[in-house]
Amino acid sequence: MRMSELSGATGIPVATVKFYLREGLLPAGTPISATSAVYDGTHVERLRLIRALIEGAALSIAQVRRVTQTLDNPPDTWHGMLGTAQSVLCGPADEGVETAPADALLRRLGWAVGECSPARADLARALARLDAGGISVSPQDLDGYAASAQAAAVIDVAALPTDTPEAALRRAVVGTVLLDNVLIALRRLAQEDVSARTFAGRRTSGAATGAAIAETSRSTG
Amino acid sequence: MRMSELSGATGIPVATVKFYLREGLLPAGTPISATSAVYDGTHVERLRLIRALIEGAALSIAQVRRVTQTLDNPPDTWHGMLGTAQSVLCGPADEGVETAPADALLRRLGWAVGECSPARADLARALARLDAGGISVSPQDLDGYAASAQAAAVIDVAALPTDTPEAALRRAVVGTVLLDNVLIALRRLAQEDVSARTFAGRRTSGAATGAAIAETSRSTG
Repeated sequence: MRMSELSGATGIPVATVKFYLREGLLPAGTPISATSAVYDGTHVERLRLIRALIEGAALSIAQVRRVTQTLDNPPDTWHGMLGTAQSVLCGPADEGVETAPADALLRRLGWAVGECSPARADLARALARLDAGGISVSPQDLDGYAASAQAAAVIDVAALPTDTPEAALRRAVVGTVLLDNVLIALRRLAQEDVSARTFAGRRTSGAATGAAIAETSRSTG
Repeated sequence: MRMSELSGATGIPVATVKFYLREGLLPAGTPISATSAVYDGTHVERLRLIRALIEGAALSIAQVRRVTQTLDNPPDTWHGMLGTAQSVLCGPADEGVETAPADALLRRLGWAVGECSPARADLARALARLDAGGISVSPQDLDGYAASAQAAAVIDVAALPTDTPEAALRRAVVGTVLLDNVLIALRRLAQEDVSARTFAGRRTSGAATGAAIAETSRSTG
């Protein structure tokens, strides 16, 4: 198909398609003359992936380029392919973040996680912020949160399409980012449900049901 | 204690404490003369909460004000108190977002969630983005994600301190936000672990192990 047909098939303006070509996100077509080239179904699929990464997962052009470079030189294994999704989504490496608590948690869990996995640094940073925010979480509770995250990851990996690398990376990157928001909303809603059942009318002060609820001190002496 | 002692006890500069007073986040002290007032332990605790909300959970002044207004007129029950944390953390209500998928999911789960709960709109928005991003998730998988979020929420609610409303709100707001990042990092790490075990060297193309892995088409005809 010609450039105009490629644009029509994907709903992406010709100028935008040319921009993706210049940025190296989309492979060049097969030249048929000095000034024109033809494109095929692989270009349509690539463009759909690029749009999903930019619109759906809000990735930068540089992040998209890392995904498309992986597709142009795909890793040998599906696990290696997923590693790309991980590294694209992880924040920059931090100097000076205390990694011991994250390392200890991962050792306890026994998960197969690379020493240099970018998500390891994300966990270290998140635990450091928790500590700086004065929120203490017991090792037992951390294990519980890990089990909850693992249950989500099992669904993630089982739902991964392995028919094409494009489809797998699209799901791994876009699905991971967009499902973050679903999981965050579901946690808030579950808190509401659990709180309703746990506290069931338990009052904040006055006629408290037990020693756990201390009288709220509001004196302004 | 005097203003300077309040500043010393909390490590917050006097100018910042005065700013919080002007913004109505911190209750006025008890006047002892025309130009000075004294403060007590409740002011110290309130300042610690304000700092945790601003530094730890990155809330805006307007969001912090909604938390402190709740403390100044606390709801009767702990469940009502938690509702404040929820409403502060939820995004603005969206016009025109399709709510049917979120409603259907919540009905199926049977969770006790208010019709006007702000997290309900968050879920509707997150599911709409998933759909717009071309990521389809089966009802069975959504139920699985919900179960994983519920497991985290059970830990959240059990860990909630009910000794003072300040402590409860601090944990509910700051702990919820900061643990989002911990859960997100743990999900990425668990994906790596699950992928390593699931795919264990399964190749992306060539000598595939089954029909599920179709030959990757890269022809540029």
